[in-house]
Amino acid sequence: MDRKSLVKLIAAVRDGSLGAEEALARLDKLATGELGFAKIDHRRTLRRGIPEVVFGEGKAPAQVEKIAAHMAERGGTVLVTRIGPDVGERLIRRLPAGTYDPVSRTFLLRPRGRTRPIPGLMVVSAGTADIPVAEEAAVAAEAFGLAVDRLYDVGVAGIHRLFEHLERLRRARVIVVVAGMEGALPSVIAGLVEAPVIGVPTAVGYGAALDGFTALFAMLTSCAGGLTVVNIGNGFGAACAAHAILAGHRGRR
Amino acid sequence: MDRKSLVKLIAAVRDGSLGAEEALARLDKLATGELGFAKIDHRRTLRRGIPEVVFGEGKAPAQVEKIAAHMAERGGTVLVTRIGPDVGERLIRRLPAGTYDPVSRTFLLRPRGRTRPIPGLMVVSAGTADIPVAEEAAVAAEAFGLAVDRLYDVGVAGIHRLFEHLERLRRARVIVVVAGMEGALPSVIAGLVEAPVIGVPTAVGYGAALDGFTALFAMLTSCAGGLTVVNIGNGFGAACAAHAILAGHRGRR
Amino acid sequence: MDRKSLVKLIAAVRDGSLGAEEALARLDKLATGELGFAKIDHRRTLRRGIPEVVFGEGKAPAQVEKIAAHMAERGGTVLVTRIGPDVGERLIRRLPAGTYDPVSRTFLLRPRGRTRPIPGLMVVSAGTADIPVAEEAAVAAEAFGLAVDRLYDVGVAGIHRLFEHLERLRRARVIVVVAGMEGALPSVIAGLVEAPVIGVPTAVGYGAALDGFTALFAMLTSCAGGLTVVNIGNGFGAACAAHAILAGHRGRR
Amino acid sequence: MDRKSLVKLIAAVRDGSLGAEEALARLDKLATGELGFAKIDHRRTLRRGIPEVVFGEGKAPAQVEKIAAHMAERGGTVLVTRIGPDVGERLIRRLPAGTYDPVSRTFLLRPRGRTRPIPGLMVVSAGTADIPVAEEAAVAAEAFGLAVDRLYDVGVAGIHRLFEHLERLRRARVIVVVAGMEGALPSVIAGLVEAPVIGVPTAVGYGAALDGFTALFAMLTSCAGGLTVVNIGNGFGAACAAHAILAGHRGRR
Amino acid sequence: MDRKSLVKLIAAVRDGSLGAEEALARLDKLATGELGFAKIDHRRTLRRGIPEVVFGEGKAPAQVEKIAAHMAERGGTVLVTRIGPDVGERLIRRLPAGTYDPVSRTFLLRPRGRTRPIPGLMVVSAGTADIPVAEEAAVAAEAFGLAVDRLYDVGVAGIHRLFEHLERLRRARVIVVVAGMEGALPSVIAGLVEAPVIGVPTAVGYGAALDGFTALFAMLTSCAGGLTVVNIGNGFGAACAAHAILAGHRGRR
Amino acid sequence: MDRKSLVKLIAAVRDGSLGAEEALARLDKLATGELGFAKIDHRRTLRRGIPEVVFGEGKAPAQVEKIAAHMAERGGTVLVTRIGPDVGERLIRRLPAGTYDPVSRTFLLRPRGRTRPIPGLMVVSAGTADIPVAEEAAVAAEAFGLAVDRLYDVGVAGIHRLFEHLERLRRARVIVVVAGMEGALPSVIAGLVEAPVIGVPTAVGYGAALDGFTALFAMLTSCAGGLTVVNIGNGFGAACAAHAILAGHRGRR
Amino acid sequence: MDRKSLVKLIAAVRDGSLGAEEALARLDKLATGELGFAKIDHRRTLRRGIPEVVFGEGKAPAQVEKIAAHMAERGGTVLVTRIGPDVGERLIRRLPAGTYDPVSRTFLLRPRGRTRPIPGLMVVSAGTADIPVAEEAAVAAEAFGLAVDRLYDVGVAGIHRLFEHLERLRRARVIVVVAGMEGALPSVIAGLVEAPVIGVPTAVGYGAALDGFTALFAMLTSCAGGLTVVNIGNGFGAACAAHAILAGHRGRR
Amino acid sequence: MDRKSLVKLIAAVRDGSLGAEEALARLDKLATGELGFAKIDHRRTLRRGIPEVVFGEGKAPAQVEKIAAHMAERGGTVLVTRIGPDVGERLIRRLPAGTYDPVSRTFLLRPRGRTRPIPGLMVVSAGTADIPVAEEAAVAAEAFGLAVDRLYDVGVAGIHRLFEHLERLRRARVIVVVAGMEGALPSVIAGLVEAPVIGVPTAVGYGAALDGFTALFAMLTSCAGGLTVVNIGNGFGAACAAHAILAGHRGRR
Repeated sequence: MDRKSLVKLIAAVRDGSLGAEEALARLDKLATGELGFAKIDHRRTLRRGIPEVVFGEGKAPAQVEKIAAHMAERGGTVLVTRIGPDVGERLIRRLPAGTYDPVSRTFLLRPRGRTRPIPGLMVVSAGTADIPVAEEAAVAAEAFGLAVDRLYDVGVAGIHRLFEHLERLRRARVIVVVAGMEGALPSVIAGLVEAPVIGVPTAVGYGAALDGFTALFAMLTSCAGGLTVVNIGNGFGAACAAHAILAGHRGRR
Repeated sequence: MDRKSLVKLIAAVRDGSLGAEEALARLDKLATGELGFAKIDHRRTLRRGIPEVVFGEGKAPAQVEKIAAHMAERGGTVLVTRIGPDVGERLIRRLPAGTYDPVSRTFLLRPRGRTRPIPGLMVVSAGTADIPVAEEAAVAAEAFGLAVDRLYDVGVAGIHRLFEHLERLRRARVIVVVAGMEGALPSVIAGLVEAPVIGVPTAVGYGAALDGFTALFAMLTSCAGGLTVVNIGNGFGAACAAHAILAGHRGRR
Repeated sequence: MDRKSLVKLIAAVRDGSLGAEEALARLDKLATGELGFAKIDHRRTLRRGIPEVVFGEGKAPAQVEKIAAHMAERGGTVLVTRIGPDVGERLIRRLPAGTYDPVSRTFLLRPRGRTRPIPGLMVVSAGTADIPVAEEAAVAAEAFGLAVDRLYDVGVAGIHRLFEHLERLRRARVIVVVAGMEGALPSVIAGLVEAPVIGVPTAVGYGAALDGFTALFAMLTSCAGGLTVVNIGNGFGAACAAHAILAGHRGRR
Repeated sequence: MDRKSLVKLIAAVRDGSLGAEEALARLDKLATGELGFAKIDHRRTLRRGIPEVVFGEGKAPAQVEKIAAHMAERGGTVLVTRIGPDVGERLIRRLPAGTYDPVSRTFLLRPRGRTRPIPGLMVVSAGTADIPVAEEAAVAAEAFGLAVDRLYDVGVAGIHRLFEHLERLRRARVIVVVAGMEGALPSVIAGLVEAPVIGVPTAVGYGAALDGFTALFAMLTSCAGGLTVVNIGNGFGAACAAHAILAGHRGRR
Repeated sequence: MDRKSLVKLIAAVRDGSLGAEEALARLDKLATGELGFAKIDHRRTLRRGIPEVVFGEGKAPAQVEKIAAHMAERGGTVLVTRIGPDVGERLIRRLPAGTYDPVSRTFLLRPRGRTRPIPGLMVVSAGTADIPVAEEAAVAAEAFGLAVDRLYDVGVAGIHRLFEHLERLRRARVIVVVAGMEGALPSVIAGLVEAPVIGVPTAVGYGAALDGFTALFAMLTSCAGGLTVVNIGNGFGAACAAHAILAGHRGRR
Repeated sequence: MDRKSLVKLIAAVRDGSLGAEEALARLDKLATGELGFAKIDHRRTLRRGIPEVVFGEGKAPAQVEKIAAHMAERGGTVLVTRIGPDVGERLIRRLPAGTYDPVSRTFLLRPRGRTRPIPGLMVVSAGTADIPVAEEAAVAAEAFGLAVDRLYDVGVAGIHRLFEHLERLRRARVIVVVAGMEGALPSVIAGLVEAPVIGVPTAVGYGAALDGFTALFAMLTSCAGGLTVVNIGNGFGAACAAHAILAGHRGRR
Repeated sequence: MDRKSLVKLIAAVRDGSLGAEEALARLDKLATGELGFAKIDHRRTLRRGIPEVVFGEGKAPAQVEKIAAHMAERGGTVLVTRIGPDVGERLIRRLPAGTYDPVSRTFLLRPRGRTRPIPGLMVVSAGTADIPVAEEAAVAAEAFGLAVDRLYDVGVAGIHRLFEHLERLRRARVIVVVAGMEGALPSVIAGLVEAPVIGVPTAVGYGAALDGFTALFAMLTSCAGGLTVVNIGNGFGAACAAHAILAGHRGRR
Repeated sequence: MDRKSLVKLIAAVRDGSLGAEEALARLDKLATGELGFAKIDHRRTLRRGIPEVVFGEGKAPAQVEKIAAHMAERGGTVLVTRIGPDVGERLIRRLPAGTYDPVSRTFLLRPRGRTRPIPGLMVVSAGTADIPVAEEAAVAAEAFGLAVDRLYDVGVAGIHRLFEHLERLRRARVIVVVAGMEGALPSVIAGLVEAPVIGVPTAVGYGAALDGFTALFAMLTSCAGGLTVVNIGNGFGAACAAHAILAGHRGRR
């Protein structure tokens, strides 16, 4: 029940066209949220400026295709994550204007005439094996309207590679840092810059890497300021958080 | 905002004593729950028939005393859990009508003229070391208006002791079973009765007992039907669940 | 050996129609439980009103078919859980009166002329990925003679969807709440209703979801009253517990 | 070696007052970072706008006092975290212009004539037991020059309490959400607002709460967008991240 | 109710000296096990030849004293485990014929005129820090009537010390091997002898020793034949198992 | 270097046919064990009376076949464990006198004219899903020359089934009890008998069953006397331990 | 920026051919490491004397081939680890001078005319199932220019096999010891020799072997001096460490 | 039995002064190691050049004093680790020539006239809280005759501090790197130098630091070459390993 409906309702009560009992029944619904929250939800979708996203993992190809096609009809951006090449090809056949990226395992269909992307996001990966997660973050961020500066393969075991790009790092307004194994890169970067850093642990490594938990815990226990963390391999979540920060920069001026 | 307020509001709009803008403002609050949910909360308190309870662990004695005294003034039952003898004595000095029980580590003050307790709850413990948790469940259940049949020290390593009480077990309508170490007693009992069984793991045992997690996992992985579980040592939670079930029996006839 | 049999036995001994040796042999069985416990078991099967169920996971298709056919011959309800479509089709070929449900992965054959289902159970799921477990609970509950009200995809990250159904939730007498990832929905619901809530964690999620353990622990550590928990993905166990509670309501009047 | 020194060095080489060998030696140091990085570090301290902070846990009282006094002499803000009342009193005796807060267990000494605080931070706690960590975040944020809007005790088991403050939540530009036990509050809030949300798990709860790991994992596995996480009980870290975000808003216009 | 009693009972019914109702009452008890199992229990106590033992950990000194005194009155062996020197002294004051051993933290009171101990048990410890657990096993075994050959401080990091005693090891009929840290000694010994080996992990070590779980898992994963394991620090349990084996040797000839 | 060789060596030194230096060189080898330990090993193989066993898991079929054929040539018993039907058939083609058992996944070839098996071992399983591990224990025990009394599907959730066989259980001299899920059966049985009980946890169950660790820990934390434990699924290890105990009974008379 | 460049730069400034501003710009880069660290990296590659290695696990065959071919063109040693036979054959077709070893799962191409290998490394394995990891260590070490003395299948459950080789063990200057299951062999060996011992845990074993973590923790908690550890299955890492030690021996004379 | 004894024995046999039987008896002992291994052990003590060390943790003060005094009488170096100031003072009263260091919590008594220390060891710590463990390593190394170059508080969150000391790091022949929390420093250093690096994780940090396991796992999963690891907080073990490496350098020339 949006504001306009409320205005109407009250008007109808005032002019007598709506009886007290009937008005009560309609308002009663508010207490259980049936209308009120639908409004909230609608506002939220607009607010975040984030397209609804299909998490493809565990969904049947036909199901993914159906949801994506439905979203495409509404005219907005369509982002499908965690899908293999076969599902990607299926989506391209259905929605030829979209593209499938085998590295990030995403399908993206963007409406034409987009606005200028919001600058300031840097996506960094420690190793080459971390690139798929980094690309999930980068592609999702682009789908959300952010410009992305990528810097890959600058892990701590050869730390000079990172320092060659120090100025680039310092120009960024938000840095997403993707790292597996010992997960130390976000700590190092957060110690060098003033922007907020979002760490994304990956499952890269074996044995003591604990499927990414070592990297996760290493990032959480870092004493570097300005560093927060998302779930293992959750490039998409990092992109959401980066968007929330950068949209806040612009939206509030 | 309860129904009466809504009726009034609508009447005021109808008779013109409340302007459209003002009415809108008041109703707008419903969308964000400010009034609506307060009502929900109030109804909930009455509904569960459970006194508000003070979880004493980690609270300063003075804080516990203050909350308990405040609750006592409203005239309802006062239950304080997880407090040592010193806090118990402090509460008795302040609220002499209450009693402190050193085994369950609870303080209970009940108003006079209570209604007849709801029968059907049995509280069982595997070992003597599990009794404090069992008593937390039993005392809380009594505070909630349930009658409690206690059966203690009937663990699986001497399983004949349990069978001597088979008929009692089968008469119960809900059974709370408290067990540490291998936590097998709830499985065995759930295999012998038709009533729902609520397992309460305890931290009794050492080494492989894993501070109660072995008992917890054993109860969860049991294939005996009708068995559900609460947190380690959560006698109070088991009492809440038992009350929800037994109150449902009576309240819905 | 029930009381009547014992009376007869003693009478037979008294009037000499049963020799001492023969009487001894019969009574001897009591000491090792051969008769006594068989009686217990028989009573139990009748008592719970739950059909014997075949847990299909890990069993060979031929084995599953054989057991199901044997159960069908006895004329009762046949429920087979955790089977894929191939085993489902095999069962339908053998027992054409049954149905296979690919979502819950169950086969169900119910005798005709069933009695009216017991009302009061609601099955709720947090996300769409939790539906298979929710359906296992719902189908099993229906097999046990319960009527099921389903409410799916009302997770906490878009909590307004839940509130639209508050009244339905409050009418339920037992609520089974299925949730993966952070597993917070059972807590929220248990805070809103007075009926007992049975939480079923699922393995939905990745990384920090810990194959369902995060949801499991979240449910166990909740401070919401009236909430108990079953094993990860154990929709069937939740249905058993719901039946034990609702059968108690009716059976004891 | 700052820019000015480099200009001087080059000038000295040009005018012949510095020999090639000597210049080489000085520049050689740059390759190993001796001078270059000192500059970097200095810039960083100014950049973050965050006072150097003393982590008091595990340090001897005398050591804490000495460091704090040394920092106070330099005239900046002094923040000491994780200290008990005895250390707090010791610091007040030494630095009477500072204050000790027993809830957040922090000592804070701020220079006079501070600039106007940066608005936009909200600090939310799920339960009363989470307040110490929430206050560590709030006090640290204030020490960093942020204004803090506090909202405490609005956990998911009585979720209506949260909704009464929905508009306040939506006005915030960054929200730090502190929660123990099932740790679901950050998910719920991130689903209701557009600002970035920083979850801070706490060790509140017992048994399945796993000393805060259940809350931590629940926050990480949430599917709510815009949510990132810091270490268990790390209110200070959340304040650093909030400052990095809000300083970015202002500093970049 | 043993066979003889049953014969008598039936005879009494036949000759009319026992009425049907009375006979029924007596037999009825069998169905719920009241007599049957009591008999079982009694037989068990005699059978194992193990005195009832008081597990002192977590019990109040007064409680321990009371139980021990009660057991002493019945004239059997009294063994109290896991008690400190203060409780030990308290027991000696009450039962001066007993002895307290500060290493194994046990109190033992044995009746005079004991039979000759059963030979064949060897108790081995890896390090000196493992001796308290080894002594708990040794003292308990002696209380059960076994003779104990002790061999301490022969861990794998200086494995030559073990080999000096190879013949003694090979003469043993059961070997209890107590080891913390890497817990490798039971594997090595089980590879050298033919007797059954019972491994007892201890919590000796830090960090990766995991409070004894590393030793426990190392013993369980050993490929040495004839090795079984008890809980961390459970010297008493090892003594029980050793007694079960050695009593079987003798009792069955 | 066996005794005979030593006698010869000394004789040769005495009669001068062996020079001092040469004798020294030979004896020096003893210090490093080259000869001495070979003797030990040989003695050990004879001693345990256990055929050498091929652990088939992870070995290539050709490798398994080669080892088994080599062992068969020496004329002893050949036991191959953890192999699938394809490897089993391969072995039967090569060694037609052997048999492959698909339940225990073992191949066994026994020489003719075996001696009478040692009686006294009972192998018990909790559920039908535990039978493969129970059969691994039983088949291995038979290969070691033990007679096996099997009792399957007597788990604690329907505990009356166990009691029907109480006398059989009490006649056993060693009981191997195989159980997954809550792993409570070994505790219950160890509380009912006087013989040593060897618990074998299995990975049966899901979620909280923790791939067998819940059963393992439950068995370890049991307070029933006489119970020791082997690794998850290690039926073979239980058979080794049972043999060590029963061979001790007989061999020492 | 190497020394020569610096000399030139300074000369250019001195003779006026380089302006102050330009010189400043070039030197400024040093602060961010762009030149300085490239030099460092180059020195490092030469220094370690270790060929760059391709970690094949998780890389596409085409990717592996491309990298290996590129490395081969530069004329150095090419080592590819963790690849199956299909990738191995692919590499041999491309680089016929190389060899693929199916046990260690490595491909190695070495330039002709190699220098004499550095002696002193021994690689020991506990069981035959540990050999693949031991061979990864051995092959990598050989690729690094070390001579390797192999000693396999000398685990602690038959410890006499180890002692037969005591002198060989004592002649080694570094010993890499590979062991799964209880992982005790490195402890035993480190107790017998004076050289540094590098333990490599493997995932050999099941259940309580915890995929190699039991072996890892056992090695870490050992009290034997001179023992350090690498990740589970990390034969390559052990070879790197062995090379670092032995190269140090030689390089520093 | 050393070589001289063997020569005597053989001589005695040759000249007839020792009978064959008697000689046999003496030699027989060799087979079980009684003499042979004593020799081995003796050689080992001399070989490692490491004084015997008293691990003070968990030992009674009187016990520690007694052992230390006994060792001092033999004239060698006495090192006691993990003792508090009270035990330290006790030792100083007894052995006034020794010193107690409260940071490393060690007592050290060194004989006069020591030889020149072996150079090449650097001990590095990430934070100030890691210094106690670093000092345990440094003090122990000095007790073993090594010279120690200390570099403290150069953690990765302010990584420029490390680079200021790059040349010192590169001069070292073995580097012990002590780090808690994310434990990344050993990776970074191993990527910068050619010497072997020994990582020592510490329990510094809270929550996700997991009492040092995060640092431990981070070090193990690092891809930096030449890095090996010891147990959490095991500064002493790192010193042993460093000594084994450096003694090898010198001893083998």
